[in-house]
Amino acid sequence: IVCIRTRQTQPFNFMSHGTRDYNPKQMAIREKVFNTIIRCFKRHGAETIDTPVFELKETLTGKYGEDSKLIYDLKDQGGELLSLRYDLTVPFARYLAMNKITNIKRYHIAKVYRRDNPAMTRGRYREFYQCDFDIAGQYDAMIPDAECLKIVHEILNELDLGDFRIKVNDRRILDGMFAVCGVPDDKFRTICSTVDKLDKMSWEDVKKEMVNEKGLSEEAADQIGEYVSMQGGMDLAERLLQDHKMSQSKQACAGLSDIKLLFKYLQLFHVTDKVVFDLSLARGLDYYTGVIYEAVLTQASAVSAANEAQNCANAEESVSVGSVAGGGRYDGLVGMFDPKGRRVPCVGVSIGIERIFSIMEQKAEASPEKVRTTEVQIMVASAQKNLLEERLQLISELWNAGIKAEVMYKKNPKLLSQLQYCEEAGIPLVAILGEQELKDGVVKLRVVATREEVDISRADLISEIKRRTEA
Amino acid sequence: IVCIRTRQTQPFNFMSHGTRDYNPKQMAIREKVFNTIIRCFKRHGAETIDTPVFELKETLTGKYGEDSKLIYDLKDQGGELLSLRYDLTVPFARYLAMNKITNIKRYHIAKVYRRDNPAMTRGRYREFYQCDFDIAGQYDAMIPDAECLKIVHEILNELDLGDFRIKVNDRRILDGMFAVCGVPDDKFRTICSTVDKLDKMSWEDVKKEMVNEKGLSEEAADQIGEYVSMQGGMDLAERLLQDHKMSQSKQACAGLSDIKLLFKYLQLFHVTDKVVFDLSLARGLDYYTGVIYEAVLTQASAVSAANEAQNCANAEESVSVGSVAGGGRYDGLVGMFDPKGRRVPCVGVSIGIERIFSIMEQKAEASPEKVRTTEVQIMVASAQKNLLEERLQLISELWNAGIKAEVMYKKNPKLLSQLQYCEEAGIPLVAILGEQELKDGVVKLRVVATREEVDISRADLISEIKRRTEA
Repeated sequence: IVCIRTRQTQPFNFMSHGTRDYNPKQMAIREKVFNTIIRCFKRHGAETIDTPVFELKETLTGKYGEDSKLIYDLKDQGGELLSLRYDLTVPFARYLAMNKITNIKRYHIAKVYRRDNPAMTRGRYREFYQCDFDIAGQYDAMIPDAECLKIVHEILNELDLGDFRIKVNDRRILDGMFAVCGVPDDKFRTICSTVDKLDKMSWEDVKKEMVNEKGLSEEAADQIGEYVSMQGGMDLAERLLQDHKMSQSKQACAGLSDIKLLFKYLQLFHVTDKVVFDLSLARGLDYYTGVIYEAVLTQASAVSAANEAQNCANAEESVSVGSVAGGGRYDGLVGMFDPKGRRVPCVGVSIGIERIFSIMEQKAEASPEKVRTTEVQIMVASAQKNLLEERLQLISELWNAGIKAEVMYKKNPKLLSQLQYCEEAGIPLVAILGEQELKDGVVKLRVVATREEVDISRADLISEIKRRTEA
Repeated sequence: IVCIRTRQTQPFNFMSHGTRDYNPKQMAIREKVFNTIIRCFKRHGAETIDTPVFELKETLTGKYGEDSKLIYDLKDQGGELLSLRYDLTVPFARYLAMNKITNIKRYHIAKVYRRDNPAMTRGRYREFYQCDFDIAGQYDAMIPDAECLKIVHEILNELDLGDFRIKVNDRRILDGMFAVCGVPDDKFRTICSTVDKLDKMSWEDVKKEMVNEKGLSEEAADQIGEYVSMQGGMDLAERLLQDHKMSQSKQACAGLSDIKLLFKYLQLFHVTDKVVFDLSLARGLDYYTGVIYEAVLTQASAVSAANEAQNCANAEESVSVGSVAGGGRYDGLVGMFDPKGRRVPCVGVSIGIERIFSIMEQKAEASPEKVRTTEVQIMVASAQKNLLEERLQLISELWNAGIKAEVMYKKNPKLLSQLQYCEEAGIPLVAILGEQELKDGVVKLRVVATREEVDISRADLISEIKRRTEA
């Protein structure tokens, strides 16, 4: 279904590869999803900020590791080298440093840009929304971190996307693990990037990349392989704290203790049913320094989306069931922008909204209920000719009273075509003007669904419309 | 005041020239303005769409006349030549043609990009929002056009920015006027661009540009000068229809008849008090084909903004009092994107939101009332040590019940610092936990403003919070 629709709405090439328009129906769905997410962010007391779509190129340099090649640059048209933002986290850190802000809880919903291979049927575009929530400030361990996971839990529950899991790990555990497995210090980040591919590649292929491309010893790779197959809860963290190899790393122990603390807070929030401590979770970005997490859909809706992708695009695209949220702690990023290197610890989460949109769209597509794209309460219509002026006068009164109303832009529209328009657009009421009604000082109010008609005096019209449509 | 604040928040150069961040306070104001505008657009039955921030360069080519040099291009990083959108109108026309849409009423609120000389104290940036409302479709003359002006009237009234005027003219009247004044056909557009500068330059300077730079005869310029000094209402349109020179132009007559019709509809909408037929209004863009309009603030708030600009930046910036909305009819634009040249007549209006923001910001600055940046209803606090777990448990219950709540991210925060936070953030209630309250199964509810404290049972807490904060 998605394939056919995509072809229909994009018949000739007038757009950049990997971008799309949102039509009114898609926007109505998008608005609903955004409202759910914003409501959650506001419930947790977040303020919001906005930053420009482009930043100085140097602001983005050295923040994204191997992904930096995907940054869109602007043409040098005089003086400044500019790039489109790649995420909302780096601009946030730049904002904090620039304004010397040491404490803030903010959300930011905006588009970001990546010159990636688009997989549009799976909701992967070169221009896409991110919905970020971050807490900056020097606080006691794991309290804000736990709130971020609570937020993911609330949003995914409320959006009703089916079952999900939130995987949790810690960069310090990964680094400690790399150290005790014999990975040289200067290879931590690149090996970490390879581990990150475990959600899309088999362990065999990941190992091959480590050994053949990254030059890691087979022995070290095998030891990593053992650890990254581990999943559990607080108990796994406790076990690893006793692990003879892992416990040799101070870093790993710090990470493991924090995972224990995190699980304790998550228990108080009653969300541990969905949270898994998973040592294979690595996250691609360079800037994480502590806890990291990622939410994945595990069931029905996700699978159907994957199947659909398989029909439409190449099979490769449907391997991963898809992350719908991710984030972590990045305590060093703000300091990179401060002339004196002052640190502002941060933790945050980004909701993968595009994937959620495509699932919601498929749901809407499958539902018998029509998505309304306007909230119009009434159409001002006429039953006879030459009543344009009377229609305009009445609709002006309605607008001034705050009623959402439409009128057809024709001097003499047919009554039938006015009624048909209402049926198509889902407008529930019609105010019908005719010579007789004007003489009597009334309006014929027609209920579109039932075809019931009643005469209402002009004085009562507005309250009657409100009564019938603002339930 | 603005100057100082600008300097404080941007202490070192981490941002591109002519761009800015919005802080939480500015965002709260922005949200309020957007809500007013969106409410109006929805009242008039508009759907919304979204388009990408960049378009193929060729989509924008040849649409903006002399302003095309201000378009931001992206670097060629493989294949496509892309540009940042310059307005929302051209992408809208591209969208209609691509999807073969012949009827739509849509609004679009998004950022556009112009490599202009920024005048940031006056709210002029290189990245700025546009709020567009457009009606596409083959309809009877001037009905949708009149609705656009009604919308401008409603929005400017509701935003309460002080007195305003909406100037109206028609491209066909301008073209007819140019023809009867002896302007050569191939100079219509460039002379039109010069006339457009009348709101910023004196007639003498405009005339000089016409004669010296554009090569117009002095006689023709003088004749234009007579016409462009004319202002009036329906009566002026009637008089010009009798004008011996103007009436020789079929085009001018068509425009003048439509202005008459427009005024008739505006009378039905009761908005003629603010509308002036002004022959000096030209609008810069190439794509207009019929009626054009522009709203300007005429009083208090606008003047204060101009004065402020004068103190902060160079004097030149404060000459124009500033347009806050503009638009017109563009019947040829969609056809430029259709392979078969099929025309879709359009009329629309764009609200100059950035200027409105800066006025609203100054108002907020001057007001004794504090702008709240969150909607938090309650803080979950503790009076004694070692109650973090109890606080987390309680706030989790509140979040799950839809209450907007915050907790301090410290194991043992001082009660005083918790209360101070509430005063600063404007949080009206505090739920205070202590050993005794926990034993008694109650929460001490404190009203921040009055310092009143009452014990509320845990079972009644949520309804009590709602009762006190959701008035």
